[in-house]
Amino acid sequence: MLYYAEPVGRLIEELSKLPGVGPKTAQRLAFHLLHVPRSEAVALAKAIVEAHDKTLYCSVCTNLTDRDPCRICGDANRDRAVICVVEEPRDVVAVEKTREYRGHYHVLHGALSPIEGVGPEQLRISQLMARLADPELKEVIVATNPTVEGEATAAYLARLIKPMGVKVTRIAHGLPVGGDLEYADQVTLLRAMEGRREL
Amino acid sequence: MLYYAEPVGRLIEELSKLPGVGPKTAQRLAFHLLHVPRSEAVALAKAIVEAHDKTLYCSVCTNLTDRDPCRICGDANRDRAVICVVEEPRDVVAVEKTREYRGHYHVLHGALSPIEGVGPEQLRISQLMARLADPELKEVIVATNPTVEGEATAAYLARLIKPMGVKVTRIAHGLPVGGDLEYADQVTLLRAMEGRREL
Ligand SMILES: [Zn+2]
Ligand SMILES: [Zn+2]
Repeated sequence: MLYYAEPVGRLIEELSKLPGVGPKTAQRLAFHLLHVPRSEAVALAKAIVEAHDKTLYCSVCTNLTDRDPCRICGDANRDRAVICVVEEPRDVVAVEKTREYRGHYHVLHGALSPIEGVGPEQLRISQLMARLADPELKEVIVATNPTVEGEATAAYLARLIKPMGVKVTRIAHGLPVGGDLEYADQVTLLRAMEGRREL
Repeated sequence: MLYYAEPVGRLIEELSKLPGVGPKTAQRLAFHLLHVPRSEAVALAKAIVEAHDKTLYCSVCTNLTDRDPCRICGDANRDRAVICVVEEPRDVVAVEKTREYRGHYHVLHGALSPIEGVGPEQLRISQLMARLADPELKEVIVATNPTVEGEATAAYLARLIKPMGVKVTRIAHGLPVGGDLEYADQVTLLRAMEGRREL
């Protein structure tokens, strides 16, 4: 970074910390940000800090939100009989985009992975268990990714939840195995939801 | 963006404006930025705004700098007999990395492109012409990219500068034609500099 003016070098350095952004990309992004109007650069900077400062985790579903409970948990029109369990907030977005599902969600923020040291206590499983006490709840749909980790998490949740008298279903393998839920097109995801089976 | 908490949606939107960043990438970057410590998010935000506020264009070579004249223009040990003309600030970095060139630079901030409406007046050519008055100056090395636009710019500069009694050279086509200067490895670029020929 010796060759750049110090503020430019620092910006390149900070951008290089982003996932998937190598030094060349960081350099291109930095020069782009130097060339846009100041207002646009400030808008990005503000959005970064505000996203940090104004988002919290919903105390019910643990999804990222700007209010607690989140819009979905606070929506009286959503079906309290079903909770769809997903790995990440982006998966909630993927399911919402099908525009068919009207139940609630629970975000685990990950999947079981002994290799990466992710055990049940690293996921938001205890919060999910607390929600099972709701007498209106009839079904938990496990919509973790169709990966080794996602399947392990589904099996683990099934063993945990079934004894409590709540039906546990798994979304169908309409998704290509090894794929990521968020990359599924909406029709595929909708079919996978419809084809869910009891675990 | 309806499906995300508002501050998250806004961050995704701002990130999507970056070149080469599609909605999926913006989403991944946004969640990354939400998960890093606040201090790291703030560091990036600050770097963006400060790069904007603290960089200016050197009044001599027009390169981006945090002081005027820039470090290179203000360095008495650099050889005032040679000016290397490049398209972009990143090209100065590429040539500096060869660690062999000890002359000065001039940054055009683009290349001639009739299709994109870039004429001589859009480039920093008048500032370059003013520098030709320096009696110590012996040679202008044109190191624009080996692309149609870069070659057109080189030819234009040669026609303009030669009548003023200053030698104009072009870096050798050691670079793959159609390629970008900044992607050349340092040895290739060094060879290209050494193999330069008079225009
Ligand atoms: Zn919620
Ligand atoms: Zn300068």
